[in-house]
Amino acid sequence: ALLLVTSAKAQSDPLPSWNDTAPKAAIVSFVEKVTKEGSPDFVPEPERIAVFDNDGTLWVEHPMYTQLAFALDRVKAEAAAHPEWKDKQPFKAVLEGDMKALAAAGEKGLVELIMETHADMTHDEFQKVVSEWIATARDPKFNKPYTELVYQPMLELLAYLRANGFKTFIVSGGGIEFVRPWAEQVYGVPPEQVVGSSIKTQFQMRDGTPTLFRLPQVNFIDDKAGKPVGINAHIGRRPIAAFGNSDGDLEMLQWTTMTGGSVRFGMLIHHTDADREYAYDRKSEFGRLDKALDAAAINNWTVVDMKADWKEIFLEK
Amino acid sequence: ALLLVTSAKAQSDPLPSWNDTAPKAAIVSFVEKVTKEGSPDFVPEPERIAVFDNDGTLWVEHPMYTQLAFALDRVKAEAAAHPEWKDKQPFKAVLEGDMKALAAAGEKGLVELIMETHADMTHDEFQKVVSEWIATARDPKFNKPYTELVYQPMLELLAYLRANGFKTFIVSGGGIEFVRPWAEQVYGVPPEQVVGSSIKTQFQMRDGTPTLFRLPQVNFIDDKAGKPVGINAHIGRRPIAAFGNSDGDLEMLQWTTMTGGSVRFGMLIHHTDADREYAYDRKSEFGRLDKALDAAAINNWTVVDMKADWKEIFLEK
Ligand SMILES: [Ca+2]
Ligand SMILES: [Ca+2]
Repeated sequence: ALLLVTSAKAQSDPLPSWNDTAPKAAIVSFVEKVTKEGSPDFVPEPERIAVFDNDGTLWVEHPMYTQLAFALDRVKAEAAAHPEWKDKQPFKAVLEGDMKALAAAGEKGLVELIMETHADMTHDEFQKVVSEWIATARDPKFNKPYTELVYQPMLELLAYLRANGFKTFIVSGGGIEFVRPWAEQVYGVPPEQVVGSSIKTQFQMRDGTPTLFRLPQVNFIDDKAGKPVGINAHIGRRPIAAFGNSDGDLEMLQWTTMTGGSVRFGMLIHHTDADREYAYDRKSEFGRLDKALDAAAINNWTVVDMKADWKEIFLEK
Repeated sequence: ALLLVTSAKAQSDPLPSWNDTAPKAAIVSFVEKVTKEGSPDFVPEPERIAVFDNDGTLWVEHPMYTQLAFALDRVKAEAAAHPEWKDKQPFKAVLEGDMKALAAAGEKGLVELIMETHADMTHDEFQKVVSEWIATARDPKFNKPYTELVYQPMLELLAYLRANGFKTFIVSGGGIEFVRPWAEQVYGVPPEQVVGSSIKTQFQMRDGTPTLFRLPQVNFIDDKAGKPVGINAHIGRRPIAAFGNSDGDLEMLQWTTMTGGSVRFGMLIHHTDADREYAYDRKSEFGRLDKALDAAAINNWTVVDMKADWKEIFLEK
């Protein structure tokens, strides 16, 4: 439904939720350059690859990454079957809502949580759990489903790029299988255009039925220097446009834009709107934007000041 | 050029290089079923995913896999810079053309050859080496470029499926970066629709330039039970049609077709034509077809008898 609304508006102004400030002009100028046949900056359609980070770029990532909220909910849902979690960190912290103890468990604790809640089940089972959760869970600040906390200006941008012959990919630090079940409906991005972090899976014949089983082992972390690796593994072409919001996107924007020659586009979403969403950057635990913000100035990446540049943030339903 | 010829012919008969035998009828019947709106077997376009093995399914794989011929040529080309290879297996065997000693080096020797010829360079460098080799190397039996030794009936099949709303993917046991540089031109399959085996790559800033560097470490083997894993990692949907030719495709065909319900299509190319190409199956070193041939009978997969079912094998240029 979101996408339909976007297309209808797009006939007059393809980016109606963007104010008429520099970022909108930069986007339109880039798209017009690369799509104008005969122009020295023209890019043939198959090469029009645009990559989008997800958390904080396409949807809200505070007060915590949505996938972490999912993992915490899963621990609570499965606690009855795991009496030992009452006395075992980081599960104890989750069950007691002790965010300080959870933070103290660090990355090691986080990986443990993810493995316990994301693995040891079939691929189909996991997809079902994610789909059911995403359909019912609500964000604590806005009291809305997470899939309604996607940025309307970015939905318009995705549609605008596709209308101009771009293929749009999500390149998320989050789990590829956490994003795929709903990305097509919400973003118009099919599963084969989602790149993300993953755990190992194994093919097994179970009672004569072919099954993919999720193992509790990290396979690939699609973040920071992993993003160009993930992009190359999945797409096999260098993107001509990249959109991110944090230091996790630094290498993706470098890989996309620093090619010495042809026209490229890099953009960072800077969360500056504490009233309508959140304001955070250099010191944030989730979505820290520090090194990449410095790099933006050097590399001529467009920085979106959410408060000044976005007319609307969410589509009111 | 190949694809243009195919499209022109397709207006009357989409599969002119196929004889009017059972396999052609099975393909057409499957495609008509899944594309007929309102039919119980109808499959929406985004779900029309077809996967194709490469070696022996889309192009010739005898007297050896083309990528192995590439690796042997690379050893010869680089031998001057590696005087130590004269006395070191498996390189010695390659330089002396001693295929028996090379076979004796086994899989371990093969991996060594691949690492030595496929790694320790940037992604761009490797793409260049592959592109130059594929443009000039010639197959020993037909004395033609390898990219002309693609099966005309399969090119027609790829085009026919795409004309019917299918997205076509290559799922090769060979190296993903060995196939990508020419797959779009030869098969009409873009790089983002190629799945294959890979070595690890690493993002590096080199003199201020972002670079992907190929490390001499296996990342993923896209063969046998790896094929469903690779398909899920890249595509994220279960295919509705799979095309292969050897035991390496067994699990891919199982994963595609054994879903208990909706209409699926599995096909194996059986090399039966020693005059026009090669004849081999259960005992072949390259492209062994044994377990999968038995499984075809049980699972109702269509087996193409190359000699009987293909009117032409290669397009005469
Ligand atoms: Ca982010
Ligand atoms: Ca094969």
